[in-house]
Amino acid sequence: MKVEVVRNILEANDSVAEELNAWFTARGILALNLMSSPGSGKTTLLEKTLTDLKSEFEFAVVEGDCQTENDARRVAATGAQAVQINTEGGCHLDSAMVRDACAKMNLDKTDIVVVENVGNLVCPAEFNVGEDYKVTILSVAEGDDKPEKYPFIFAQSRVMIINKIDLLPYVSFDVEKASAFAKAVNKNIEIFPLSATTGEGVEPWYAWLRRERIKKKI
Amino acid sequence: MKVEVVRNILEANDSVAEELNAWFTARGILALNLMSSPGSGKTTLLEKTLTDLKSEFEFAVVEGDCQTENDARRVAATGAQAVQINTEGGCHLDSAMVRDACAKMNLDKTDIVVVENVGNLVCPAEFNVGEDYKVTILSVAEGDDKPEKYPFIFAQSRVMIINKIDLLPYVSFDVEKASAFAKAVNKNIEIFPLSATTGEGVEPWYAWLRRERIKKKI
Repeated sequence: MKVEVVRNILEANDSVAEELNAWFTARGILALNLMSSPGSGKTTLLEKTLTDLKSEFEFAVVEGDCQTENDARRVAATGAQAVQINTEGGCHLDSAMVRDACAKMNLDKTDIVVVENVGNLVCPAEFNVGEDYKVTILSVAEGDDKPEKYPFIFAQSRVMIINKIDLLPYVSFDVEKASAFAKAVNKNIEIFPLSATTGEGVEPWYAWLRRERIKKKI
Repeated sequence: MKVEVVRNILEANDSVAEELNAWFTARGILALNLMSSPGSGKTTLLEKTLTDLKSEFEFAVVEGDCQTENDARRVAATGAQAVQINTEGGCHLDSAMVRDACAKMNLDKTDIVVVENVGNLVCPAEFNVGEDYKVTILSVAEGDDKPEKYPFIFAQSRVMIINKIDLLPYVSFDVEKASAFAKAVNKNIEIFPLSATTGEGVEPWYAWLRRERIKKKI
């Protein structure tokens, strides 16, 4: 009974996610689902990316949080459109929430939609929100064992960003080890070590965005 | 229908949690539910605490993870009893899992049971696991805004540990600000800034454990 209800919820979510992805695709929009633990630097990476690529792409952002509108404000300050979803304690975004948030924006000229999920390395992995790809951030302060201990989200992700590499001298984190753990659950995952704060290493991430955006362009 | 099922799950969980807490209380055991984001230092704090207080208390630990038995091994290396629960992707522990894990240990001489929950700052807040108190760790690498953005878990917690204070010179984190956010949702929360790695600041946390243990002692 419980299992049945959960399956129905996931199926209903996937169905809306497929419609939403088709809608993005018909408009040539690249859609990304950005996930991580709380405090890994999702919003800081977005601020940096949206600012640096402002002249190349039109971004729109759906911000998910349990509470506050702080992140939408930070993103909007870069000049991008942003809508905040407060889940009021909910542990992930679902596709209907993202569809409704997108309906509040004008996406006519949008190149890339980024959904910043609730900070959680577990639950968001199960809920597609209409994205082309899941992008998961791991900060070096969290430890290199996380892809082994939370394999599901890394198995689902096209990209793992290893963030806060400016902290590497002060923490015990082996980039090779973290990468090997991620590749063990997902051999095709692309890995970009970078610092969203200092800007070190962001170029390969930007190159990936450019490549994937071209693939979707009509 | 969906809401009804969720309520039933929470009520069933609470009922087992109450029984389990009564069982701990009858044996004079202090039970703690240790929660945080992935990589905030739950296991490292446990290793430090169990080692430093080995001559004072008999500890038993229930380790929760999505995957791997690494944490139970780390804890067992301190000499404490430890049982690992793998949730296989589940985002929190529940009281029945903890009850069954406790049944695998001999708690006749145990003073303190610590349940190390799955790394997740959202879902575990809703599931009591038989504890006297919830203890939530926030690492300074995660940012001082987390108690504002994830208020539910801090509202439920008796203690907030601000961990990794050895990283304060390298990150943007205001201890006063984080404390004010936590107190805004929970005016009685006790806050211990410390570094589980260097040992700085651990004494007030140990003093709290001693005080609470005496209250439960028969």
